[in-house]
Amino acid sequence: METTTMPNWLKQRAYMTPERIALETAEESLTFLELHEEVLGRAGALGGLGIQKGDHIAILMGNSAEMVKIIHAVFYCGATAVLLNTRLTEEEWEYQFLDSKAKLIIASPEYYDRVPVNENKKLSLMDAVRLLQKPAVYEEEYDLNQTAVIMYTSGTTGKPKGVMQTFGNHYWSAVGSALNLGLHTEDKWLAAVPLFHISGLSILFRSVIYGMTVSLHERFDAESINQSIIHNKTSIISVVSTMLDGMLENLKECSYPKTFRCMLLGGGPAPASLLNQCKEKDIPVVQTYGMTETSSQFATLSMEDSLRKLGSAGKPLFPCQIKIVKESGDEAGTNEPGEIMVKGPNVMKGYWNRQEATARALENGWLHTGDIGRMDEDGFLYVLDRRSDLIISGGENIYPAEIESVLMEHPLVKEAGVTGVTDEKWGQVPYAFVVASENLTANELLHFSAKKLAKYKVPKGITFVSELPRNASRKLQRHVLKGMVQ
Amino acid sequence: METTTMPNWLKQRAYMTPERIALETAEESLTFLELHEEVLGRAGALGGLGIQKGDHIAILMGNSAEMVKIIHAVFYCGATAVLLNTRLTEEEWEYQFLDSKAKLIIASPEYYDRVPVNENKKLSLMDAVRLLQKPAVYEEEYDLNQTAVIMYTSGTTGKPKGVMQTFGNHYWSAVGSALNLGLHTEDKWLAAVPLFHISGLSILFRSVIYGMTVSLHERFDAESINQSIIHNKTSIISVVSTMLDGMLENLKECSYPKTFRCMLLGGGPAPASLLNQCKEKDIPVVQTYGMTETSSQFATLSMEDSLRKLGSAGKPLFPCQIKIVKESGDEAGTNEPGEIMVKGPNVMKGYWNRQEATARALENGWLHTGDIGRMDEDGFLYVLDRRSDLIISGGENIYPAEIESVLMEHPLVKEAGVTGVTDEKWGQVPYAFVVASENLTANELLHFSAKKLAKYKVPKGITFVSELPRNASRKLQRHVLKGMVQ
Repeated sequence: METTTMPNWLKQRAYMTPERIALETAEESLTFLELHEEVLGRAGALGGLGIQKGDHIAILMGNSAEMVKIIHAVFYCGATAVLLNTRLTEEEWEYQFLDSKAKLIIASPEYYDRVPVNENKKLSLMDAVRLLQKPAVYEEEYDLNQTAVIMYTSGTTGKPKGVMQTFGNHYWSAVGSALNLGLHTEDKWLAAVPLFHISGLSILFRSVIYGMTVSLHERFDAESINQSIIHNKTSIISVVSTMLDGMLENLKECSYPKTFRCMLLGGGPAPASLLNQCKEKDIPVVQTYGMTETSSQFATLSMEDSLRKLGSAGKPLFPCQIKIVKESGDEAGTNEPGEIMVKGPNVMKGYWNRQEATARALENGWLHTGDIGRMDEDGFLYVLDRRSDLIISGGENIYPAEIESVLMEHPLVKEAGVTGVTDEKWGQVPYAFVVASENLTANELLHFSAKKLAKYKVPKGITFVSELPRNASRKLQRHVLKGMVQ
Repeated sequence: METTTMPNWLKQRAYMTPERIALETAEESLTFLELHEEVLGRAGALGGLGIQKGDHIAILMGNSAEMVKIIHAVFYCGATAVLLNTRLTEEEWEYQFLDSKAKLIIASPEYYDRVPVNENKKLSLMDAVRLLQKPAVYEEEYDLNQTAVIMYTSGTTGKPKGVMQTFGNHYWSAVGSALNLGLHTEDKWLAAVPLFHISGLSILFRSVIYGMTVSLHERFDAESINQSIIHNKTSIISVVSTMLDGMLENLKECSYPKTFRCMLLGGGPAPASLLNQCKEKDIPVVQTYGMTETSSQFATLSMEDSLRKLGSAGKPLFPCQIKIVKESGDEAGTNEPGEIMVKGPNVMKGYWNRQEATARALENGWLHTGDIGRMDEDGFLYVLDRRSDLIISGGENIYPAEIESVLMEHPLVKEAGVTGVTDEKWGQVPYAFVVASENLTANELLHFSAKKLAKYKVPKGITFVSELPRNASRKLQRHVLKGMVQ
């Protein structure tokens, strides 16, 4: 008998462990039973608005207890949550709202007025809370094959695509993480990364699956996070390198207590200097490699291996497999570079409404990550080059192709090429090379792109050139651009 | 995308955590990598004998490192392991061997000569080890829908039926247990219960799924088990009440160290006196309710609830659901008794080659346990009556119907009814009431049944009666028999 359903996760926790703390914020603290009750009210409100099983609901909110409640309420209705990045422009929100065919967008007050969507398709949070009521019916079980969440991400092509993550993807991801990091009754996971990203959302899922407290922070603040670890029994935290840098700087001569057992570090291999600092302070760093398409981590590197295998992304999680495939299609030998492909129950169902892109990405259950890597003699993975020349800026993924396509929308731009350049604060920032047909100023083009691109995606600088470096088949060589930055 | 495969579990552990200890016995200690290598040799030997994917292989062995290796080797071949209880009679072994359509039986030396099977279908362990060779190919992945194991169990009807447990059943069972009990890197689970029972086998699966050490004992010995807990960092152990009694008696004034974190107690609700003793000694008892058909635990009761909810089996594991159904087919209200039904990904695929029995047992994913129970106002389950008047004797399940059908095979026996009576050492033992057509002595009938039944199933005593208590529809009333025992 095939297993495809499970009891509704939060409801099951409200039954199994009603009095355990599910969620802590600066303002409130909710048990699993209390969270379930609050979610029921919101699910009833959504039901009253005509939201039905299978509908898509966009959510535009920053980290808050209310966002957690709304996300679960969408699941209680049997609907799919489309999570929008709050840092995007109005135009980007509109694109993702329309592309996802969402029936409704729920926005918190700071974004509500800026959402370029018909009033009858918008719901302000205050309205949602005013409408509170118990639903007549709600999902008693979750279908593991159902799409729980859609998150947008770009790839090699210009426009962002919606990644469909099922309940099953998230269950297996959470379990794979627990089988690797262990699971303690007193665990508390701190989320200062955005819930609209997979790094943050996956913590919410682990919370209801493990019966674990989430300590939710509105934003990253090194001081308050260190306080939470030192005084408030945080045992695990998800960070990227820039956050860890800030935390170490703020920590000064202090150290973390024994209750803190895992610093889960994503967003690319960590530099030796950072790892050495952590080693000195006895901070248990676990590096992780994952992406939206794999519903969070799929490989990790433990502290004990991190200096011996410096720069490695580690080994796969228990339910996952990794292989390196050469351009010929053959599997690469030891230390031979090739495309990193991954397989596992946490790999997305596909891209929403993009059959071709899905078929290109998924091959017999194996996901083409687009990243280049190699596997060493002990089976440790090394990521040599991020896909599509991915730029990682303060934890946000930036896809050059997306910026290039926006630049080329300007009538005076003929060609555009974007690459990442090192930045002291953000790690990397995008930089553009442009072939323009007439006299176009960099300022004018920057102004143009700022209207269409989230702030962090707007190029830090623009250099006008007479032609872009291309290979024999006229493909843009972004790695050559990198060398052209002065 | 439906997930149906995972990497071969032991192989994945040999890759992820090669140097962790997988197995400890009195004689040896093996890492996951070493165990994998040893299993490869046996898988090659089985392959050389013509064993193929889909074959059934019976295994007749007592707890030992070799048994662990053979079980995994069967999986490496893509075959199903049919685990035979070593305490059964030759006739019972033959029945299960033939019924399961096993291609081969692998027996350890103490049982080999007694196996009533053609020589060409038997493999002695020594032969298996002599044939060691690396296999050309073996299962790189496990199909979660494949039957990993068949274990025989009786029900309301006379003959034992083979319960088919899939890899998926075992994965979800292990994960459900971890989500309830937690998972620590330093965990070590002691198995003194037989590996041919689900209580023992499930520990093996948890070992490869968690990357956890199994401390394997050949048999239950209170002294050596207490030593293992006190001096050898055992953190969890699976026991039944009679074992726990023995351990407490042996422990005397001593207590267990902090490294010991869970006494998983199966086989029916524990008496208050035992729980009070454990409370005094600060022993963390977790009571559990499960059966072969649910691939181990599906409900547990924590120590903190055990005295408050005395006699309860607790709440379901995270992936499981329980409901109580009245004879009318309606769901029972709070505290109303009815049949306990369970649903979850750990519920068996069905009974091997018994379509009708499977259809009776499974209804839209819900398993009829046959047990009678009620659910209290807090959602705690109470088991009021074990199915088919199940007799639990020193941790072994005994089904009255099976004994009755053997007694009735005697030409002088007209009717037979069996019930359990209290026994100081074993908890319960079977006792028979017989209607015989002529002068038949109890001794003669006991001798007859001893040839056909495992020792622990042979009635402790026989009383001859003129008729058996039956209800209006002539159904045997076993609870009335209980009152007839003097």
